[in-house]
Amino acid sequence: MTKNLETFFKPKTIAVVGASKDSRKIGHSALKNLLISDYQCKIYPINPKEESILGLKCYKKVTDVEGNIDLVLISVPAAIVPRILKDCKEKNVKNVIIISSGFSEIGNHDLENELKTIIKDSKMRVLGPNVMGYKNASIGLDASFVYGNPRKGSIALISQSGALGIGMIYIANNEYMGVSKIVGVGNKIDIDDDDLIDYFANDPETKVIGLYIEAVKDGREFMNAIKRCNKPVLVVKAGRSTAGARATASHTGSMAGSDNIYSAAIKQAGGIRCRDIVELFDMAKALNGQPPALGNRIGIVTNGGGLGIMLTDACEEQGLVIPKLSTKTFKKIDEILPNLIVPNNPIDVIADADFYRYETATRALLEDRNIDGVIVASVHGGYARPEEFTGAILKMIRERKLHEEFKKPILATWVGGREYEDLVLDLKSAGVPIYSSSWRTARAMLSLYLEGLRIKKDQKKKD
Amino acid sequence: MTKNLETFFKPKTIAVVGASKDSRKIGHSALKNLLISDYQCKIYPINPKEESILGLKCYKKVTDVEGNIDLVLISVPAAIVPRILKDCKEKNVKNVIIISSGFSEIGNHDLENELKTIIKDSKMRVLGPNVMGYKNASIGLDASFVYGNPRKGSIALISQSGALGIGMIYIANNEYMGVSKIVGVGNKIDIDDDDLIDYFANDPETKVIGLYIEAVKDGREFMNAIKRCNKPVLVVKAGRSTAGARATASHTGSMAGSDNIYSAAIKQAGGIRCRDIVELFDMAKALNGQPPALGNRIGIVTNGGGLGIMLTDACEEQGLVIPKLSTKTFKKIDEILPNLIVPNNPIDVIADADFYRYETATRALLEDRNIDGVIVASVHGGYARPEEFTGAILKMIRERKLHEEFKKPILATWVGGREYEDLVLDLKSAGVPIYSSSWRTARAMLSLYLEGLRIKKDQKKKD
Repeated sequence: MTKNLETFFKPKTIAVVGASKDSRKIGHSALKNLLISDYQCKIYPINPKEESILGLKCYKKVTDVEGNIDLVLISVPAAIVPRILKDCKEKNVKNVIIISSGFSEIGNHDLENELKTIIKDSKMRVLGPNVMGYKNASIGLDASFVYGNPRKGSIALISQSGALGIGMIYIANNEYMGVSKIVGVGNKIDIDDDDLIDYFANDPETKVIGLYIEAVKDGREFMNAIKRCNKPVLVVKAGRSTAGARATASHTGSMAGSDNIYSAAIKQAGGIRCRDIVELFDMAKALNGQPPALGNRIGIVTNGGGLGIMLTDACEEQGLVIPKLSTKTFKKIDEILPNLIVPNNPIDVIADADFYRYETATRALLEDRNIDGVIVASVHGGYARPEEFTGAILKMIRERKLHEEFKKPILATWVGGREYEDLVLDLKSAGVPIYSSSWRTARAMLSLYLEGLRIKKDQKKKD
Repeated sequence: MTKNLETFFKPKTIAVVGASKDSRKIGHSALKNLLISDYQCKIYPINPKEESILGLKCYKKVTDVEGNIDLVLISVPAAIVPRILKDCKEKNVKNVIIISSGFSEIGNHDLENELKTIIKDSKMRVLGPNVMGYKNASIGLDASFVYGNPRKGSIALISQSGALGIGMIYIANNEYMGVSKIVGVGNKIDIDDDDLIDYFANDPETKVIGLYIEAVKDGREFMNAIKRCNKPVLVVKAGRSTAGARATASHTGSMAGSDNIYSAAIKQAGGIRCRDIVELFDMAKALNGQPPALGNRIGIVTNGGGLGIMLTDACEEQGLVIPKLSTKTFKKIDEILPNLIVPNNPIDVIADADFYRYETATRALLEDRNIDGVIVASVHGGYARPEEFTGAILKMIRERKLHEEFKKPILATWVGGREYEDLVLDLKSAGVPIYSSSWRTARAMLSLYLEGLRIKKDQKKKD
């Protein structure tokens, strides 16, 4: 078995066993997705009953194909899978994706063990069974049977649930976030979460790694992979509750394990546990677009006093600190606020705040050595014009490139309505995450702080 | 002082003191908003320096106006407010809104006390100072100075923060939710949260009451008003953390009070405390459109096993229970699921679920006496078509009208992307709330369960 997944993710030749002319069949969709892919490679449909499918010459068996095969996708009834897998072994196929289901997830452990026995003494790497496959957006290859086109970007996603994996693609698209690779891992008879984390740790296209897991096969290896990884690893671990664990058992046939142990182990390994998929993306956005926070002291600029309080509450609940302003910062802000308004942290720049007030307050916080991260928040207060708010943030993001002391994360919060979508677009190109709730903003800032801690720890090890 | 706020919310004559020709002035916006209103009444601009403003004859003083004045809006510098208030008292004005700020919120307690002394022995009801005013969407009257048009509907909103109040209007619009009234309460020298809760309890246009508060003046009266209220009361109480309390003090000059006491007291009174504004709307949507849950036993239908687990986790964390299926329900569902798939709760109808599978599973849960509420969830699994999912929910909502045993809440969850907005529209007309996260769905279901408890308690008192 090779640790390297290079040919798995960038195969030069791919065969689809169970390829079909019937558009309702998975073997049809899998072949179609390969054909739609930007990425060019040799594709061989395998089906003993057909001469050609979708214009491609059809082969009866994997062993009939001339030359090497880097990747085989298998979509045939479960009972036939062992025979096909043996063919692959005989052909020296490098990688296999078993899409077919009907194994341990429905209690059919014997059949799954048969697969394990076949691959035991081979170099073949196997994903599945019971998986959607993968989509390699970095090169534009769709080796899955499901619909959905992720944008190219730098978040690698690993999902034990196929359906949820696709849901994640759509969340990513909706959030204007790009994906490097998305992989369904299913029953994990060979390729496991730790293999994928190791691969993504060294993948130049990946900056942040996100996982949805229900159970891991080898806890120690999983935690070690997170520990080894030099990139942020976000984990949604489902099956926290008793009934959740029961549901897990019948979903992928795996035991959920003690939840507190997972939480502690993930934290200990330097990973970040997310409440759910939405939070995974909230944090991924922050980690992808912003520098880490090298401390937990947060400054807040807001045009709504109430919003400032809610952000303060949410930050403190996450262990972040909203320190009082230094005398220097106080003076800078006092100059631009209306008479009688006393600067504080959160800095209330008042409902009618214009570009200049937002800008001055944000700059003062970025320059302040007692502040590690900045939240700029706006509430549609009748007078608040989004362009004053986003303009100031964009200016600071641009200035950040010029000033060393500005290298702190900036997150944005907007409380309002449909105009929020335009703000997302406004801030997208600058990589500034914007959230519509104080809780989500605080949790995203927490992830930046945890990333700062992880980096400092890694640095210490090296020193 | 009269307890009745009838003329306050439905005035026949309104004067604006500080009305201005200058479009940058608050007195201009307030007058303009009144003129834009659908609601027709007599409007008097008051400004000693002008002959007419926006086409209306201008008066020098409130006392110059002939006939009664039901409502006066005051927008003049703080120092002049006492003199204007005395004029109002002399004129026997029924209600006053003091928009002007510059009182206790900036430490100017003496000036605020002067206002209190003036109104002490009068029947005049006073809102403010330091408020946006109110918008009465039920009749189409905008007695505020801020921009923003709420849709007419049945949620009454009370906000101690003006800016946040407007933010709420936009959230409501964005969520396709209607508002009955929205009121800013500011420094609360007279009209207080409890007065407004009492009014909305008897307001036929209001079904759900939502409050954003930083501090209450009279805790006992506030809790009693919630206890008296025969409608769900949702409370966002900010200033939970130490720094949040500090920020509260400088925002509206009030003390936040012990947070745990607030939580306990709100719960004791039968109110529901929300994490933030977004959650307030999540719960308001559920309470407005769905019957309460008369127990905490929840059934889940999902096309994604992982989503089912996350929903289960989230529900159990909220004290809801996901019971095992009864034999009867098991059999009904077993019939429609593919071979080898064993029914469970959550019921996994599998990624390719069609209308019929969703419908059968949802109906079985509604008919089951061991289930008090149903969550129907879908994840965009490549094969999942929104119309199968929403169609089944809409059918059940329609059947609910015909069957007594169906009178249980149904909430929907969708994990996916931009198509979510179309689903919101699909389900809107039927009043079915749909959420994009398992956590939010569970919290909304919790609010329906708490409402069920409140109703049962009220019933017991009557019996």
